[in-house]
This record gives sequence, C-alpha cells and structure tokens, in this order.
Amino acid sequence: MTPGDQHSDAPAAQPVRSDAERNRGRILAAARAVFGRDGLGASMASVARETGVGIATVFRHFPTKEALVAAVFSDRMDAYADAVATALDHPDPWHGFIGYIETACAMQAADSGFADVLTMTFPTAKAMEKRRNEAYEGMVELISRAKATGRLREDFDPSDLVLLHMANLGVVNACGDAAPDAWRRVVALMIQSFEAPARGTLPASPEHDALYRAMLRAAPVSGATRKPEQSS
Amino acid sequence: MTPGDQHSDAPAAQPVRSDAERNRGRILAAARAVFGRDGLGASMASVARETGVGIATVFRHFPTKEALVAAVFSDRMDAYADAVATALDHPDPWHGFIGYIETACAMQAADSGFADVLTMTFPTAKAMEKRRNEAYEGMVELISRAKATGRLREDFDPSDLVLLHMANLGVVNACGDAAPDAWRRVVALMIQSFEAPARGTLPASPEHDALYRAMLRAAPVSGATRKPEQSS
Repeated sequence: MTPGDQHSDAPAAQPVRSDAERNRGRILAAARAVFGRDGLGASMASVARETGVGIATVFRHFPTKEALVAAVFSDRMDAYADAVATALDHPDPWHGFIGYIETACAMQAADSGFADVLTMTFPTAKAMEKRRNEAYEGMVELISRAKATGRLREDFDPSDLVLLHMANLGVVNACGDAAPDAWRRVVALMIQSFEAPARGTLPASPEHDALYRAMLRAAPVSGATRKPEQSS
Repeated sequence: MTPGDQHSDAPAAQPVRSDAERNRGRILAAARAVFGRDGLGASMASVARETGVGIATVFRHFPTKEALVAAVFSDRMDAYADAVATALDHPDPWHGFIGYIETACAMQAADSGFADVLTMTFPTAKAMEKRRNEAYEGMVELISRAKATGRLREDFDPSDLVLLHMANLGVVNACGDAAPDAWRRVVALMIQSFEAPARGTLPASPEHDALYRAMLRAAPVSGATRKPEQSS
C-alpha cells in the first residue's frame, strides 16, 4: 500500500488486486516525476503517457487530479506534520523551534518535493490544505511559546518560515551536488538572526495575501527545471 | 555605443555605421533574452534566430561566443564593480559592507541577469573573469576592514556573500511580483546575523572548489525557467 491510501483524498477503498496495486504505484511514481518536471499544471494525460498506460487506467485509480496530487504529496505532508508535532513536544519551545527548522530544511534539501509542501498551496486538494493548515496552526502555537521563553525575537512572524524555506531552496538549488551542505550554514545564520534580543528592526513582513499569491505561483522545483503553471 | 564596446572582450574597434550599430544593439537584446531563457549554453545560431538575422551577422559583430557573453553581461559587471568601489569608499567599513549587501541584493531583485554575474563563473570569458576577480578582491578587503571595526563577526567568510545571493535569489524567484519586497526582510535578517559578536558557531563554509563548481553549474535564471547547461 502506498501512503496515499490512508488519506481522505484517496479514492474510496475497494478490494485491489496486486497488478492494480502495481499500476497504482507506477502511476504515483510517474506523477511524481511529471509534477516535479512540469508543475502541478501537468495534465492527467501526460501522467498516463509517462506511466505508459491509458488515461482511463489513471482515472480508475485517481478519479480526480486532486486525488492524484494528494496521493503524490501526502507522504511529504506526513513528514511535515510529524516535524511540527515533534517540535511541539519538546520541553523547551525555543529548542523545539530551532529543531523544527533544522529538520524541515534538511528534508527540503534532501527532497525537492518536500519544498512544494512547504511553500506551495494546493487550493484544489482540500484535504491536503486542511492537514497543512493544522500543521501551520501548530507552528503558530510553537512560535508563540518560543516567544514566551524570551529566546525568539518578538517581531518574528510565521511568514518568516516561508521566506526561510524559499531562501533555503535557493541555496539548495544553486549548490546542488557541488556543495550539498552549504545550506546548513545559511540556515544556522538565519536561526541566529531569529534569536532575541533583535539586533535591529526589520522591513515589514509581506502581507498574508501577497505571500499566499507567491505560494500559489510557485511551481514544484525538481532539479533545475521549473515552469510557472499552477494546478488548473 | 553599448557598454560592451569599452571592454577588451569586445571585438577590435572598427568604424561602425549606424545600421550596424543598430544591429549590434538588437543582437545584444536578443542574446540577453536567449541567455536568460536557455542559459549560457545557448548557441550563436539561436541568438541569430531570436534577432532575426543570419548567423554571419552575429559573428561579424561578435567573433566568438565569449565576446557576446562579455558584451551582454558587462553592464551588470560594471554595476557590481561600482557597488564594491562605493562600499570601499565609505568611511565606516561596516556601513560600507551592509550598504553593499543592500545594493547588490536590490540589483539582484530588479534584474535576474545581475544574479548571474554574482553567482556564476564565466570560465571562457577571460576579461569578465578578471574584472569580477578584481571586484571580489575589493570585497575581501572590505570584509577585512569591517572585521577590524569589531562589527562584523570574525568567522564571516567571503563565500557567505555568494550563499546570501543564492538565498536572496530563491526568495526573489519564489515571490516574484506577488511579494516583490519580501527579500528585503530576509536580507535584513541575514545582515543582523553577520553582526558581531556571533551568537553561536556555524557549520564550516563550503570548500572553495565546491562552491566554484556550484557557480559553474548555476545557469542564468530569468523568470521561472532555467536549464542546467553551461557555456560550451
């Protein structure tokens, strides 16, 4: 069984024969490659082509593109939600907070698909959005607790985590295999900049709607190819 | 006259008629678009196609691709060298240093071609490399002076500027027009993290050769399209 089977975006459970399971796995692998290469705007037809099956087979396993997107990204969403839960469980909220950042940035460096979960929205995949929003609420709570300890600067905004992940992705993409750990130094500097007391004021955070639009337009990045299209 | 005419990578000066000048400008504009879209690996033939002239016309103005690359990027190289010179002239090296960062990151946000000058190498364009190396030496001198004031952390490495520009480009590319000033907040945080005394140790900087390889593989980024090819 693939991780997507466990989630409400997945098609209704039915007895599945093993060749159907194998097909499902092949479709998911192909979809991961196609979405990584062409963005979430890629069509079900191109996923079928990549898999080497007819489009009807794709639709039999995933009745909507939302269901397919959710299945492709759900394991990354699980990892993100787990990282937030672990951070919230830490007895010291500041250490939970920086531990989360290091974990999430490491996941982002290891897997460009994870970056999509962090910096994109999935407006057409409601269950995905719901789970991410729950994790996001957990982060907001963690940030509030970390501020209460006096270790996190008061003007830290949850959107700074989105910006951090965009910056991290820039380093990861630019350095690639040539300097695969360079992002760690940038993330360490960023974490130190978050520490209270603040060493100066900051330009205002982007407005929520603006950052949301930015996340909407950000396409999955895989290797060095990206396209601007978003889920249609 | 275009900026490229002043530099040693440009073809030997000859009396140029005004329609030839116009052609030269059109070729440069087309090359800027083609390199931005396809990377420095784009062929002279594709520049000719984009310009709408024969390839012989392109070679008459730019006898080698190195000469064309140098002409396309020389105005950005000028801006980079000017920013370094201005920073070195500042009576307070720390303020010169942070002023340089703000200027260079603003140029990077406004013009993706500028990012290429900062984070790529041009191994086949010797004069470009020479000018950039001179500007880089100026930066190393400025960093040394800023450390001497006690305001810049001792473990700051010149390569941290490259990483900063990679991070900034990540934010600029991800936010685009949706949140066009979001990078300012990230850069302000980074500058605060550079301030002495350091709030903690940092992971080691990437090795010089590793970062150089990363810069070699980084292709020009324009909008949301990039390709891995480098100058051939």
